[in-house]
Amino acid sequence: MHALSVTRAKNFSAWYQEVVTMAELAENSVVKGCMVIKPYGFAIWERMQRILDDKFKELGHVNAYFPMFIPLDLFEREAEHVAGFAKEMAVVTHRKVESKNGKLVPTSPLETPLAVRPTSELIIGDSMAKWVKSYRDLPLLINQWCNVVRWEMRTRMFLRTTEFLWQEGHTVHETEAEAREETIRMHEVYKWFICDVLKMFGIAGQKPEYDKFAGAVDTYTVESMMQDGKALQSATSHYLGQNFSKAVNIQFQGRDGNLRYAHTTSWGLSTRIIGGLIMSHSDDDGLNLPSEVAPYHFVIIPIIKGDDKGEILEYCEKIRRLTPNSVRVFIDKKETSPQNKKWDYIRKGVPFILEIGVKETSEERVYFTKRLTLEGTSMPLAEFGNKITELIRRHDEILKERCEETSRKKINRSVKTFAEMKEFFSKNENGFVIAKFDENLRDTEALDEFAVTVRCIPTEQSGTMGKCILTGTDTKTDAVFAKSY
Amino acid sequence: MHALSVTRAKNFSAWYQEVVTMAELAENSVVKGCMVIKPYGFAIWERMQRILDDKFKELGHVNAYFPMFIPLDLFEREAEHVAGFAKEMAVVTHRKVESKNGKLVPTSPLETPLAVRPTSELIIGDSMAKWVKSYRDLPLLINQWCNVVRWEMRTRMFLRTTEFLWQEGHTVHETEAEAREETIRMHEVYKWFICDVLKMFGIAGQKPEYDKFAGAVDTYTVESMMQDGKALQSATSHYLGQNFSKAVNIQFQGRDGNLRYAHTTSWGLSTRIIGGLIMSHSDDDGLNLPSEVAPYHFVIIPIIKGDDKGEILEYCEKIRRLTPNSVRVFIDKKETSPQNKKWDYIRKGVPFILEIGVKETSEERVYFTKRLTLEGTSMPLAEFGNKITELIRRHDEILKERCEETSRKKINRSVKTFAEMKEFFSKNENGFVIAKFDENLRDTEALDEFAVTVRCIPTEQSGTMGKCILTGTDTKTDAVFAKSY
Repeated sequence: MHALSVTRAKNFSAWYQEVVTMAELAENSVVKGCMVIKPYGFAIWERMQRILDDKFKELGHVNAYFPMFIPLDLFEREAEHVAGFAKEMAVVTHRKVESKNGKLVPTSPLETPLAVRPTSELIIGDSMAKWVKSYRDLPLLINQWCNVVRWEMRTRMFLRTTEFLWQEGHTVHETEAEAREETIRMHEVYKWFICDVLKMFGIAGQKPEYDKFAGAVDTYTVESMMQDGKALQSATSHYLGQNFSKAVNIQFQGRDGNLRYAHTTSWGLSTRIIGGLIMSHSDDDGLNLPSEVAPYHFVIIPIIKGDDKGEILEYCEKIRRLTPNSVRVFIDKKETSPQNKKWDYIRKGVPFILEIGVKETSEERVYFTKRLTLEGTSMPLAEFGNKITELIRRHDEILKERCEETSRKKINRSVKTFAEMKEFFSKNENGFVIAKFDENLRDTEALDEFAVTVRCIPTEQSGTMGKCILTGTDTKTDAVFAKSY
Repeated sequence: MHALSVTRAKNFSAWYQEVVTMAELAENSVVKGCMVIKPYGFAIWERMQRILDDKFKELGHVNAYFPMFIPLDLFEREAEHVAGFAKEMAVVTHRKVESKNGKLVPTSPLETPLAVRPTSELIIGDSMAKWVKSYRDLPLLINQWCNVVRWEMRTRMFLRTTEFLWQEGHTVHETEAEAREETIRMHEVYKWFICDVLKMFGIAGQKPEYDKFAGAVDTYTVESMMQDGKALQSATSHYLGQNFSKAVNIQFQGRDGNLRYAHTTSWGLSTRIIGGLIMSHSDDDGLNLPSEVAPYHFVIIPIIKGDDKGEILEYCEKIRRLTPNSVRVFIDKKETSPQNKKWDYIRKGVPFILEIGVKETSEERVYFTKRLTLEGTSMPLAEFGNKITELIRRHDEILKERCEETSRKKINRSVKTFAEMKEFFSKNENGFVIAKFDENLRDTEALDEFAVTVRCIPTEQSGTMGKCILTGTDTKTDAVFAKSY
């Protein structure tokens, strides 16, 4: 018996949906394609924001805010870029509504329609062009936390929604070398965040030529592996060369006195990562969370049966008082069934769930369930107070080990031919195939048949020679092939 | 001689614009009516967010995120509400663009056009209706930090822009009494934030009948006074009664088992407050900031003349090390003129500006300028380390006293007739007139002639009888009359 009605093995997609619903992370809204991020889900996002924001600032970035609307004529400036986003762009065309036959209709059409930002390279670049005059103004290191819109017809909570939240870093540099260094630095911040903070399994690498960000010279990605063996593109960092600085005219006076175009980068991570977090760690009893983004490290459920309420609640407060400040505690005093509460918190992935009744109170002990194993333990309060930090550390360790182990098993390095690849991906079990790939290839249509794409060219390369799985040409390049979200 | 080219006395509006520009707070963007909040301006907003967010959470509120798009048919549900916003609503009507004759045009029209949220009562209420089933689910205390859009034809940085940032609280309660209590509680939080944290001068009160939030039963406001004597509506809190719960069907099972409509509230504060902050404290040398929202409490400008660079920078780091953790310090190592830097930081309102040269380094002293008075002081480093917290406290005190004094002088309680009021507002000097007002009056057109409105009915009432300045009827009610932003 599990706390959810569907298991991962039975129906991964229905299971995912149930984890999201039962943990009260998000739900569909009345607006097609847009979700509501509920308080518990948003608390996870807030923790992610805090960790990343601190790191960005430590590395010298500052936050700012730019208009959400982008005039269509500004979009026309970068052809590749607009081609990449044209098919999913929400457009504001009117600035009033009025009632006609009892129905509200838009009126007062705009002269220039405005796109709702799908990303902000052009609108931010347009401002940056004014701010950068000399090499002394560089580097310019800006980040923005905001909402973006990419129209989606088929949506899935967190993974693919019309509106989503993200951060987008945009930086301007004097030289190509410095811009490339920044791109890699932020790529590594993402790798750290995804693998070390969130304890997910991810492979860092570069996107193949045909799958780069629209307008980028190079795109770096962390491709995380979900428990069903599919890949999730989790965060990307782009070296944009001078493409955007030429489009919006970011020029500066160089050290030699000559005007030159700057080199720019951009990098982003979105609420999509919450979907990845869910599919990396959750089990058939619901969500599991790494401690750094868990809204609570432990909850206390008072078990009140008779007139012992005051005493038990007082003891719960004592437990909270004895807990180190860095540990997040919640005492659930709501008057509903303690058993239901316990299962709710299991489905919500709270690492430790304490049940405190008259026995624990009189003996100064705590009884708790470890979310990862569902085992129950009883120990003296003093011992718990001393051990909780270590318990949390161990929780994170297990989470990481478990995810790592599941993922490593699904990596296949023995596929040598297209036929073998086809056979691998035609089985129910998915995974990452690491095989040879001709980097210059732009047509990978043959992979469409089994819905596989080149996820990335990993930074860690074997260095051996082999034959491209698609063309048969000799190549040293290893690539990750997988189905993806 | 002042650090700005225009004084408040000469041209208040041009002066405001220059403060914003010279302090690098914000600038116009390529999108008509939308501004860019630059890093220094955004850092102030981030500090405001942190302070308010902590307070909201302390009072039991949680953050969440709801769609920015609101289908027009959802808006139809509350007639007064839609009437209030119809004339300034940005509407998304298409979901793609394509190139036609080299120009991007919108394609793929939507079946139901989507408003970009001007406020979220309806879209958040629509979700809340699903979350609230029983009185046990109440109160529901939600807050959202986001961008909103209200189309403006005449814009002014921070004060009036088409897109702006804000927080909007939305709460659901079992009874009218509880909802009214929440409305007042949050109104008092705003009063505390504006007057105690931001050290601004504000009068708290209720909006008159004809100027309430569209759809509200009662609207509470803090009306701050700017240095030109005009009022700025700085934050509002609304008791919405059952108007919105009926519109979106927020019903719950009461303690008696019967279904009933909930009572709701909403309350918001926006980036507009930054405009208010500027016009409350800044002077003819630029911005002034209360310490709680100042990005830096002091900056250190190294004065390097020869080969003493290493030594001086090392000493600057030492000053930083000896500063208490709660004090925010920035060392400006950029290789530009120290004199220019100093004036830049004066215009940016950094409370204390340190200039550290070879003399200070060798004598272990600091030389600093107090922003508020521009006086220079030299003292031993050890003394500075001990005194800095006190210096900051005193800075805040002066700021508050100064603003309070300027404002109190501009309050007029002696106006008894319409003719006297007209005379007062026809002079160059503006201010708040506190005079008698018949609360039930809905037509105050007579005030339009000199652009004055009833700003609020202050919570603090004199209790004396008098004659309404507009109708001559007997009334006890005092109201604040003023021109406003």
